[in-house]
Amino acid sequence: MIFHVVTLFPEMLEAPLRESILGRAIKQGLIEVETHNLRHWAEGKHLSCDDAPYGGGDGMVLKPEPLCRAVTALKQRTPAARVLLMSPQGVPFDQHHAQRLATAEGLIFLCGRYAGFDERVRTTLVDEEFSIGDFVLTGGELPALVMIDAIARHLPGVLGSADSVTSDSFSDGLLEYPQYTRPPIFNGVAVPEVLLSGDHGRIDAWRREQQLLRTLQRRPDLLEKADLSGDDRRILEELRGVTDGS
Amino acid sequence: MIFHVVTLFPEMLEAPLRESILGRAIKQGLIEVETHNLRHWAEGKHLSCDDAPYGGGDGMVLKPEPLCRAVTALKQRTPAARVLLMSPQGVPFDQHHAQRLATAEGLIFLCGRYAGFDERVRTTLVDEEFSIGDFVLTGGELPALVMIDAIARHLPGVLGSADSVTSDSFSDGLLEYPQYTRPPIFNGVAVPEVLLSGDHGRIDAWRREQQLLRTLQRRPDLLEKADLSGDDRRILEELRGVTDGS
Repeated sequence: MIFHVVTLFPEMLEAPLRESILGRAIKQGLIEVETHNLRHWAEGKHLSCDDAPYGGGDGMVLKPEPLCRAVTALKQRTPAARVLLMSPQGVPFDQHHAQRLATAEGLIFLCGRYAGFDERVRTTLVDEEFSIGDFVLTGGELPALVMIDAIARHLPGVLGSADSVTSDSFSDGLLEYPQYTRPPIFNGVAVPEVLLSGDHGRIDAWRREQQLLRTLQRRPDLLEKADLSGDDRRILEELRGVTDGS
Repeated sequence: MIFHVVTLFPEMLEAPLRESILGRAIKQGLIEVETHNLRHWAEGKHLSCDDAPYGGGDGMVLKPEPLCRAVTALKQRTPAARVLLMSPQGVPFDQHHAQRLATAEGLIFLCGRYAGFDERVRTTLVDEEFSIGDFVLTGGELPALVMIDAIARHLPGVLGSADSVTSDSFSDGLLEYPQYTRPPIFNGVAVPEVLLSGDHGRIDAWRREQQLLRTLQRRPDLLEKADLSGDDRRILEELRGVTDGS
């Protein structure tokens, strides 16, 4: 799978792409990531990629033509690639999108800067528009990195162990259970006894209950879409009773 | 304001922090960002920062002691700093958090890796726990960069123009209006006539209506908390009528 990133700041992406799991996946040829300087497709003496907004206002708007030339050129390289725009106006990106986009042959990320994109980029060049959250950033480079990381984890071989992605948070729509490692007592707090019991049935049951409890307490909105068994629902009813009664 | 980032991969943060608005803010002394290698606070021959989870399971868990030493050392430098944990289990980070955290004297970001943190880090060392979205990443470094960018934009002088932050998406709880720049026609689509009219009353009214329409179509959930005038509510009623009727 190939990730193309079109940006005015290609250097921003290079160090994060060298490190850790993404860096290893690139070295092993499991994924390719190419950063492209948008200015390469600019014209005129100053190679300018932005211009003042029609109707006035602060900031500069990214011009449509250089982005159009970039998409045309990169689609010649990777014809089936999907074109993604990062902006606060997009659909909230989540783990389901990550899983789905991991099946694409290629992705072209268009990173914004300044006051944003000319609206016609959105309506005529782009397949999907994503937001990574309800906050404003200086540009689309960090969101592109975030999405590449979340997507690449779903590709075969990228994670060391095949199981790791299925025990991640959100893989079944719930938050993760609490983890403990040595020492047995830290800052006066002991590791829960069950984890030292060696009884894997009890450990699994405790962990599932903790997942349900944590999701109920912190993100009850996730429970509506979570993948729950009959047992899960029964435990949740009990937990709700305890929580309401306290 | 000082941002401390505790991480096993300090190099990941350096290039993104050199570029663009954050890089300029650092050069001008408006913010300080220090990256700290967690291994600096590890002990033993291998300076290991992780260990196997109690109760079994994939992945390694970040040990509590090195993080505790890191927080203690950095709080000596910046006593009033708030300690933030990045994890998918956290409160969803948004623009209101960004604005609030911009008033802190300092922030200490603890970046996770592997299967996560020992639970006692969460319960005994941390002031707030944030998630940047419902997806799983390899580590907390990109979320820390995202939060630093979103927070720093609220500090005086960091953005070029004082107005830019207030015209950002979410500053009044709505998405942004569409932007257009030259050429007047691109891919067969013309710039809306009103933006060429020079009539700033009409332009402002059109832009506000577009903000309301876009938020209604794409993120109706935001309207419940948005900062709306009586006029806004009247326009929304009309837009709802048109949308339902079509």
